[in-house]
Amino acid sequence: MSNNISPKEEVLNLKKNDTKTPLKVIRVFAPATVANVVCGFDVLGFAVNEPGDEVEMRLTEIPGVVIKKITGDDGKLPLDAAKNTVSASVQHYLKHVNRLDVGVEIELHKKMPIGSGLGSSSASTVAGLFAINKLMGDLLSPKELVPFAMKGEELACGYGHADNVAPAILGGFVLVRSYDPLDVISLPTPVGMFAAIVYPEVDVPTKDARQMIRSKVFLKDAVTQWGNVAGLVSGLFMNDFDLIGRSMKDVLVEPTRSILIPGFEEMRAIAMENGAIGFGISGSGPSVFSLTKDEESAKRITKAQQQLLHKLNINSKAYVSSVNAEGPRVL
Amino acid sequence: MSNNISPKEEVLNLKKNDTKTPLKVIRVFAPATVANVVCGFDVLGFAVNEPGDEVEMRLTEIPGVVIKKITGDDGKLPLDAAKNTVSASVQHYLKHVNRLDVGVEIELHKKMPIGSGLGSSSASTVAGLFAINKLMGDLLSPKELVPFAMKGEELACGYGHADNVAPAILGGFVLVRSYDPLDVISLPTPVGMFAAIVYPEVDVPTKDARQMIRSKVFLKDAVTQWGNVAGLVSGLFMNDFDLIGRSMKDVLVEPTRSILIPGFEEMRAIAMENGAIGFGISGSGPSVFSLTKDEESAKRITKAQQQLLHKLNINSKAYVSSVNAEGPRVL
Repeated sequence: MSNNISPKEEVLNLKKNDTKTPLKVIRVFAPATVANVVCGFDVLGFAVNEPGDEVEMRLTEIPGVVIKKITGDDGKLPLDAAKNTVSASVQHYLKHVNRLDVGVEIELHKKMPIGSGLGSSSASTVAGLFAINKLMGDLLSPKELVPFAMKGEELACGYGHADNVAPAILGGFVLVRSYDPLDVISLPTPVGMFAAIVYPEVDVPTKDARQMIRSKVFLKDAVTQWGNVAGLVSGLFMNDFDLIGRSMKDVLVEPTRSILIPGFEEMRAIAMENGAIGFGISGSGPSVFSLTKDEESAKRITKAQQQLLHKLNINSKAYVSSVNAEGPRVL
Repeated sequence: MSNNISPKEEVLNLKKNDTKTPLKVIRVFAPATVANVVCGFDVLGFAVNEPGDEVEMRLTEIPGVVIKKITGDDGKLPLDAAKNTVSASVQHYLKHVNRLDVGVEIELHKKMPIGSGLGSSSASTVAGLFAINKLMGDLLSPKELVPFAMKGEELACGYGHADNVAPAILGGFVLVRSYDPLDVISLPTPVGMFAAIVYPEVDVPTKDARQMIRSKVFLKDAVTQWGNVAGLVSGLFMNDFDLIGRSMKDVLVEPTRSILIPGFEEMRAIAMENGAIGFGISGSGPSVFSLTKDEESAKRITKAQQQLLHKLNINSKAYVSSVNAEGPRVL
């Protein structure tokens, strides 16, 4: 492959079925994701348009995957290609498509906090996989990328879950029905739904948050939970915001995990008083999210929740965006 | 109200908004129902067109509810109006609509086995409630009848559940999202779906079947279960028979309850070998059901399952019908 046209020209050439000028460099945005979605512990997630991570990827003549630069991570992420989730999953992809001859240089631009419960590692990994798949000419479908991103998750948090990576790849609301075999189902994204996310800057490592959960639960509580999961899924298909809201109740995990999040119940009250459809923990926290029917109430909610956290002497970040229905995009 | 036109004339007069000739007698069919629906323990049910019960109801001049006759019950059901679920729930309805002045005579024609796991008491109760509501001029909506039918269930099996009565009243697949407050959601009925039901004539009382279930379960199994519940509900909305089939797995209740059902695993094998979408216990058993894509495979399945049971020296009954999408009907 020649390397004698400028990167800018190459980016402009990104068109489907354009095989004349193979793309050599690409910059991709992949979205943050809210996993668990209240009652949907370990099975439901959705993507947002803000925040997200960006990956710039360049094909080179020297085989192997290299991390050239990471910005926005405060030096927290490994530059070692074998340890970084982005490079490791890209490497895994190249092995699968039998293209270990390919050379790849990666710049990772973190645009979201790490360890926030917003699928930070997923966003990076998915941006990298989306980029390499585009550069290789879309050899795999978005759904086929999910297992590669799960490998990245395993590296990042010791547990290869899919409820962040699947919505980050596919966009919208996604159900992970089963892991063995992997069965990922795209659910409808209700029109006009907004997400209001607040990240209180306290430390809640995913592993600790998982360990807090009891391994045994009462069957009657599990029945309540799956009634709500079924209601939430029905509400998405019916575009019924009221049913979605009634179903956004978690009797099993939230009561324990919310203890780690300062001002959790007060933030819920703020959300519901300001017209939220529902409110809950994003992933394993400490970020919280509200779903709303419009941008204005989403902004009101994040503003009031941040004011509350400020009073509690806790720094915070807030994000308001529509639910991302498309997944990653080329920038 | 006068009583001088013949019953036949009155039935013919059953038309909506016909207030000139108040109806005095009516005969109603209400469907059998499959509750639990594999992974949807206590939250999902659906109605079938065969079997079902029939109630003939007549308004009289003497206030109070009377059971005039019961057929097809082998003398098992009480004629005492306070103890019979049909009369008791009709009485409850009349009290609610403030019409205790009304006199009602009921004939109950059982057309399905009692204690079979097919919602036998529900079918009778719902037929009665649908009949009295029609005779009173549809004072309540079908959904509003659900709590009255639940009272009947409480009388019949000591537990006021809704996953039989709700589909019997509303038809199709129904989700009971919550009991407190009651939240019942009609799900789509896939076009062309058939149910193949086999009732092995062994005794499995609902109360015993409930007591077999463990009160605590592993969270990881509960997650598997609600992933499947979400998949099943999604499959109904997407009219995706394959997804419905993949989701029809019960890791929590079926492994215990199926022990009480002779030839259960063999009947499952017969169902799946003959193209069933899925197979499971109906309610708390001993009836089993298969969902199929057509009538022919449903018939093949029930025939082969009955042959198996015959070899095991167990009498059985079989029913093949399309999924009932409408609920009760006036005969």
